[in-house]
Amino acid sequence: MPKTEPTLRLLPLGGLGEIGKNMMVLESGDDIVVIDAGVLFPEVTMPGVDVVIPDMDYLEDNADRVRGLLITHGHEDHIGAVPYFLKRVNAPVYAPAMAAELIRHKLREARLLDTAELHTVKAGDRIKAGGLEAEWFHVCHSIPDATGIAIDTPVGRVIHTGDFKVDHDPVVGHPTDFLRLAELCQGGIFLLMSDSTYAEDEGYSGSDRVVADGLFELIGRASGRIIVSSFASQIARLQIVADAAFAHGRKMAVVGRSMQNNTRLARELGHLDIPGDTLVSLAEADSMPDEQVIIMTTGSQGEPTSGLVRMSRNDHREVKIRGGDTVIISASPIPGNEVAIYDMIDGLVRLGARVVTNRHANTHVSGHGRREELRMMLNLANPRYFVPVHGEYRMLRSHADLAVDQGIDVENVFLLTDGDVLEVTEDGGRIVERVPAGHVFVHGLGIWDESGNVIVERRSLARDGFVAVAVARDRRTREVRGTAKIISAGFVHAQDEAVLLTDAESELQSVLDRTSTEKLEWPQVEDLVRRTLEKFFSRRTRRRPLIATVAVDL
Amino acid sequence: MPKTEPTLRLLPLGGLGEIGKNMMVLESGDDIVVIDAGVLFPEVTMPGVDVVIPDMDYLEDNADRVRGLLITHGHEDHIGAVPYFLKRVNAPVYAPAMAAELIRHKLREARLLDTAELHTVKAGDRIKAGGLEAEWFHVCHSIPDATGIAIDTPVGRVIHTGDFKVDHDPVVGHPTDFLRLAELCQGGIFLLMSDSTYAEDEGYSGSDRVVADGLFELIGRASGRIIVSSFASQIARLQIVADAAFAHGRKMAVVGRSMQNNTRLARELGHLDIPGDTLVSLAEADSMPDEQVIIMTTGSQGEPTSGLVRMSRNDHREVKIRGGDTVIISASPIPGNEVAIYDMIDGLVRLGARVVTNRHANTHVSGHGRREELRMMLNLANPRYFVPVHGEYRMLRSHADLAVDQGIDVENVFLLTDGDVLEVTEDGGRIVERVPAGHVFVHGLGIWDESGNVIVERRSLARDGFVAVAVARDRRTREVRGTAKIISAGFVHAQDEAVLLTDAESELQSVLDRTSTEKLEWPQVEDLVRRTLEKFFSRRTRRRPLIATVAVDL
Repeated sequence: MPKTEPTLRLLPLGGLGEIGKNMMVLESGDDIVVIDAGVLFPEVTMPGVDVVIPDMDYLEDNADRVRGLLITHGHEDHIGAVPYFLKRVNAPVYAPAMAAELIRHKLREARLLDTAELHTVKAGDRIKAGGLEAEWFHVCHSIPDATGIAIDTPVGRVIHTGDFKVDHDPVVGHPTDFLRLAELCQGGIFLLMSDSTYAEDEGYSGSDRVVADGLFELIGRASGRIIVSSFASQIARLQIVADAAFAHGRKMAVVGRSMQNNTRLARELGHLDIPGDTLVSLAEADSMPDEQVIIMTTGSQGEPTSGLVRMSRNDHREVKIRGGDTVIISASPIPGNEVAIYDMIDGLVRLGARVVTNRHANTHVSGHGRREELRMMLNLANPRYFVPVHGEYRMLRSHADLAVDQGIDVENVFLLTDGDVLEVTEDGGRIVERVPAGHVFVHGLGIWDESGNVIVERRSLARDGFVAVAVARDRRTREVRGTAKIISAGFVHAQDEAVLLTDAESELQSVLDRTSTEKLEWPQVEDLVRRTLEKFFSRRTRRRPLIATVAVDL
Repeated sequence: MPKTEPTLRLLPLGGLGEIGKNMMVLESGDDIVVIDAGVLFPEVTMPGVDVVIPDMDYLEDNADRVRGLLITHGHEDHIGAVPYFLKRVNAPVYAPAMAAELIRHKLREARLLDTAELHTVKAGDRIKAGGLEAEWFHVCHSIPDATGIAIDTPVGRVIHTGDFKVDHDPVVGHPTDFLRLAELCQGGIFLLMSDSTYAEDEGYSGSDRVVADGLFELIGRASGRIIVSSFASQIARLQIVADAAFAHGRKMAVVGRSMQNNTRLARELGHLDIPGDTLVSLAEADSMPDEQVIIMTTGSQGEPTSGLVRMSRNDHREVKIRGGDTVIISASPIPGNEVAIYDMIDGLVRLGARVVTNRHANTHVSGHGRREELRMMLNLANPRYFVPVHGEYRMLRSHADLAVDQGIDVENVFLLTDGDVLEVTEDGGRIVERVPAGHVFVHGLGIWDESGNVIVERRSLARDGFVAVAVARDRRTREVRGTAKIISAGFVHAQDEAVLLTDAESELQSVLDRTSTEKLEWPQVEDLVRRTLEKFFSRRTRRRPLIATVAVDL
């Protein structure tokens, strides 16, 4: 369509059924800004994958128009892909302090720090990005220095809330800045993108103060050693536990490199105020009576290499769980982690610990707002257009319905899927095209795949294992020579393998012997081998291993 | 120890961190009875496994002493392994009607029906099993004909509650029979085994009547078509939905073979009373207006082949989801299924359905009693010894602690792990030995493994894939000949594979060419190949594929 009027384009990229969580692209004329560049952790259907990153082909194709990467906060699902982004797009990165420091660390590890242009911004800062102008404002979330971003475009003001909740007196960091938001939203804005994670749940997510009270009471009541697990970036929990430790005459030791790094970082940035000599080393804690010790560690999601999981398996080098220990899990399960978490709890209970979770005490509140908080944001912003972001489809749907209930015209609410390109003008909006936005898998050194053969093959291998067949072939006559050999892995039990494979070799050899292999092309030989063995193994095992045939050239 | 007094031995077998769920062995002198023979569904860490069954080596070794298999109820985790049991132990099976019919179906499929001795029992029936005597009594659970079992032994009365809850007026089936239980427990019993599934949760699990009211209201309010999903064996939900359909002028169609079979079976057994002409075929339902139709289907756990999952992917042959449909999920997520369930819901919402779960309405209550119900059972039985069963370790721990709170001597409460052999006499009890009780995996035709090489290899294959290397070797001189060939699967993306593997072949060939292979044993050649390629692939990909080397004999 002819661009007779200013047009805004929105493209969510990357995510596992979630949109705009990991990366949101905003285009206006020749200017592109990108909001966040996060990773997702692979699902069980993506075996062997280290992380999933957004598909950035579109951005690379339009790299000369990208004016900046604007970061809302420092969680991995918002900053984890920054190095991958910078390898493909040379653009300045703007991030609030905590996020900026975490990104700096990543860039150092990826040897990109010297070439990257990384700016620390604070709430109220405005930056120019081509014809666009962005301003960060405080929101409350489960990491310090969380922000939303207002972006002024030729067509009007756009607000991206980032991840947010409403907590008027958070333990650490700032409340969501309604004063500035009210100014920014004066008269209604053009387009709002708002966090949908808890759009299905009525009410309020609750203040950190609830957790402070809950942990204070639990810590006061426990008689032995206390171990509290949370996310490494959950600085408010560190503050709460440190305060409770001080009040109850305990010392606090922080275990694990990521949590120690974040503790140091948060203290440097002034987010963490640990009273007196409350923070001790684990060695010091070990020399104290149990009832004077609190250990903070990671592992609230049952992550295999985390501190608490290692403790639950009794293979943590420094901390051995024993009778009398109280373990407090200050988090709620992220869907998909339940079994790992329950396994971990079972292990801790076996070792004699009492385990307290948010199922039976106030050990956790979410960092994402529920419906009352989302209504508040919708009413304040009073946007002409609304795009729910950050959530799985059912959450976006709930949020979209909520927005319509709150009076936004149903035609101006857009439920996007990653790769959709939404164009909006003064007159209306529509999805005009789709760009590639599949999963991009990172595994190992610099190799990354779109969802290709690898994952499909791995799923097959995980289910049925494989059988490898070696034959030798004369380069000149093309005749298959010698005796074909078969090996397998992940297929049958070791004690059954020898008989089964010897029988398979006999069957295969007799077929090969009957065949004039010199008349066959190699793919025909492969096909013959595969069909013969598929039939044989199906009959003998009712399984379908992946059959791979290799020829040695003689 | 010398057997100077009657001794009772208890051995829980099989389960994934759960004890006595799938199979509990009770020994008294020369007599063995087995309570339940169930399967578990594999966890994500057991790729390709069809089902997990208890380790029955101990039973096979003592087969001549097994007097009977006593079944509490017809859920898969209590009857699924009956055919595997009967292949190894020739003993009569006693089961209440619904379970007996479901077992009959399994035995027919396994061609064991002619040789098996399957008895249908009803509450109040007593059978002799050697020197033991067993009596079944009604308990309330989420399948009709659920029972507990009282077993009289020389040392005293043992009660196994089976899976139970307290519902004084269940929609289908009988309430837990406290009258008979009170008689059986007169004066206190010797040993109680009681369901621990909800031992962590205070209060009552709630009556089916809550669900009846909840579904009645949801169905009354919905204007379009309604689809309700539950377990195929959840006959009470069928009854509730049929009643609500009748009341609101709708017809009910049942989709899916297992649910249809169970509906027919439950009607034959008199458990299901569907009013008037409420039950219709799907074809009939399709010809009616949407607001007169309810479809019952399976898929409440996101099972890949279930009706509702197929509908959510728009590939169900008979039912296409459309705008206006209301989908009610009448179940709660079993841990581990959350991601599959959420994916399913997202799919349904994308297709336009409104999805209602037990998160926001009374669509489900559990079939397992909570702590108030467990206290009631403990008080009624007033056992000398207590063994919590049916639950993961943390649940058993909770139940054990509850029993101690209720006044049972802490020394008489036993927290067992599968394979523990508990011996109890008048004077006390202790764990005297351990028998093998690991996971036994069933996959494909009659092949079953203890946890051996297969699962470990599959996990490795799922993570990194494999590389197969073929070399040719002269039978006589042992010299490696020709050009080694390498193929891979699940390892690298197709577009990178050719270059990587060709480079690997060159590297390997140059190593082989430098080596006097005729002087090496085959394991040494294998080792050389593996070390060479491990180093090469680690450098080039930072991955560790499984490396399999095969030699063709020339």
